[in-house]
Amino acid sequence: MKDRDVRAVILAGGRGTRFWPLGRAARPKQFLRIAGPEPMLLETVRRIRPLVPPRKLTLIADALQTRQARKLLPRLPAGSFLVEPEARNTGPALMLATARVWLENPDAVVVVLPADHLIRERAKFLVRMRAGIEAAARESAFVTFGIRPTFPATGYGYIGYDREAGKTIGGTVFYPVRGFREKPALARAEEYIASGDHAWNSGMFLWRAGVFAEKLARFAPELEPAWAAIVAALKSGSPAKLKRAFRLAPASSIDYALMEKADGVLVADGDFGWSDVGAWSALAGIWPRDGAGNAVRGEALALDARNCLVWNPGRLTALVGVRDLIVVEAGDALLICDAGHDQKVKDVVEALKKTEKYGKYI
Amino acid sequence: MKDRDVRAVILAGGRGTRFWPLGRAARPKQFLRIAGPEPMLLETVRRIRPLVPPRKLTLIADALQTRQARKLLPRLPAGSFLVEPEARNTGPALMLATARVWLENPDAVVVVLPADHLIRERAKFLVRMRAGIEAAARESAFVTFGIRPTFPATGYGYIGYDREAGKTIGGTVFYPVRGFREKPALARAEEYIASGDHAWNSGMFLWRAGVFAEKLARFAPELEPAWAAIVAALKSGSPAKLKRAFRLAPASSIDYALMEKADGVLVADGDFGWSDVGAWSALAGIWPRDGAGNAVRGEALALDARNCLVWNPGRLTALVGVRDLIVVEAGDALLICDAGHDQKVKDVVEALKKTEKYGKYI
Repeated sequence: MKDRDVRAVILAGGRGTRFWPLGRAARPKQFLRIAGPEPMLLETVRRIRPLVPPRKLTLIADALQTRQARKLLPRLPAGSFLVEPEARNTGPALMLATARVWLENPDAVVVVLPADHLIRERAKFLVRMRAGIEAAARESAFVTFGIRPTFPATGYGYIGYDREAGKTIGGTVFYPVRGFREKPALARAEEYIASGDHAWNSGMFLWRAGVFAEKLARFAPELEPAWAAIVAALKSGSPAKLKRAFRLAPASSIDYALMEKADGVLVADGDFGWSDVGAWSALAGIWPRDGAGNAVRGEALALDARNCLVWNPGRLTALVGVRDLIVVEAGDALLICDAGHDQKVKDVVEALKKTEKYGKYI
Repeated sequence: MKDRDVRAVILAGGRGTRFWPLGRAARPKQFLRIAGPEPMLLETVRRIRPLVPPRKLTLIADALQTRQARKLLPRLPAGSFLVEPEARNTGPALMLATARVWLENPDAVVVVLPADHLIRERAKFLVRMRAGIEAAARESAFVTFGIRPTFPATGYGYIGYDREAGKTIGGTVFYPVRGFREKPALARAEEYIASGDHAWNSGMFLWRAGVFAEKLARFAPELEPAWAAIVAALKSGSPAKLKRAFRLAPASSIDYALMEKADGVLVADGDFGWSDVGAWSALAGIWPRDGAGNAVRGEALALDARNCLVWNPGRLTALVGVRDLIVVEAGDALLICDAGHDQKVKDVVEALKKTEKYGKYI
């Protein structure tokens, strides 16, 4: 492990709208202090720090979010920030980030981490990542972490695996992946859960840079021209060339573009208290709650109020006779949402987009 | 009418807590722009203006509220503002205000108006007030306006009257009052409604100053020492004397101290769109509502939201999947209250009083 060249690539370019009105176009989820005392991006950087020194860290995001990330992490070297020529989902971004590593050292192990996930058990996370790094280094495999499903979620992708063929590396069992499954309908999700051999796709991946290049050539040859052009553009140092090269790659996720086509994928149990913090109601399971189930950031006075989630720092919120509400006060906008309807928060943003005078609230 | 000396006394000293957090100790209901474009006190002054010139107008309130009222009405003469030496309910306040008129002209008619009621039909209000002034001038009577009850309210006092003995004055029928009834239990309120001869006590009264003095002497002789002392203090011009005199009067409402003890009280139908705007939910019947029943001050975006009342000027409020909520954003405090629980808003203020750090929110 000590001799391994390990690189972390943090996907910092998400643009979710589910945390409106706190999350805005110019301040997406990874910049919010919702799951801990620091912005999620900063927590992600600190979490992997024991395994990856700053000079081996890459944050990839678009220009706007890179500016914000640099403000948040002023001591990271400038080279840590890799600007996507344009937002094209995770496929092109990870081809670019991996190509940069590959040019330096094809044997380096790349650890890909979303910037906006919560990991409650940091020590266990490091144990699993160390094992994942070993697995990626020793095997010519893509390594992933799957989350044991607790309910038949239809909002996550699933990973099916062969639970009879596990192999222990670094104290962690890695199973051969049978296939990636797109977000399923409910009945299918229930089947996955009942099967006992499907996990949620956490979006965390590890690979040796050279293995990535080989698997791309073998299983997704349609990506070869883009890969070659990106490598050439990086060698030339020309932003214009890089932009053209980047556009050759289809705008799709790495899962869809490469992972689900490839043989030699391993998955281990991501049993380190993972949450993707997908919407406001997820925070009800993360923030401390009072005896009546209310979880509050700010001051609150609850009279006959239960199971409310309040974000209103610096102000007093009085809750009277209400149940199961999400209340978010953020500058010029206030959200009052039934807890069972928080998937509709993104619809609010869509509705705001349709009215010009509301543009300032997005 | 033209020759009548008519004085208006506006009771501007209310200290309600039912409109928290917009209404605060230092900014009670009469100073809020909740029922129209102007603060309720200003609307009250403007409403009676066609019958009473500014120099014949008296606003009575405590020192703090008088300061605020002067800011709101900077062009009223200084003598229009009568400061209560202390808050002692409406009895002492109206003895003081009436004594001041009585010293100038015992034949003057005093029109007493609460500062925090809404009158939707201003023209009809003036017709009824003109008739009330005539009645008070011609008859040696206290004149009141009663509101035809629309439900068995337990939060209002009632006035019972003899509906067979009406007398028309100025196109308005005045009935002899049989008695004032305190806020009743529900069963009693239902009896009052069924009887057809009980009205809600609106708190609007008219009397000749001399009639007030006579009835006080005859029906409430226990108030005589206070009355005599107030008159003497006003003559002397000594604030210290006035303060002592004021304290001789029991701290009770004029209804309880005098009206309900007196003979010769008339009531007419206050059919001019009255509302005492008793709590936030009352505004749902006053503010315009959208097709889903939402009434909003400020901008709102409602997705599957019904019958919500929102005060949040200058900000956007998004309501998602919620019903029957009162949402009030006011500076450093936010209220989220079930519409059926808005009587508990005053309990919020009581609860805040019990915690020192919350004192700033009261």
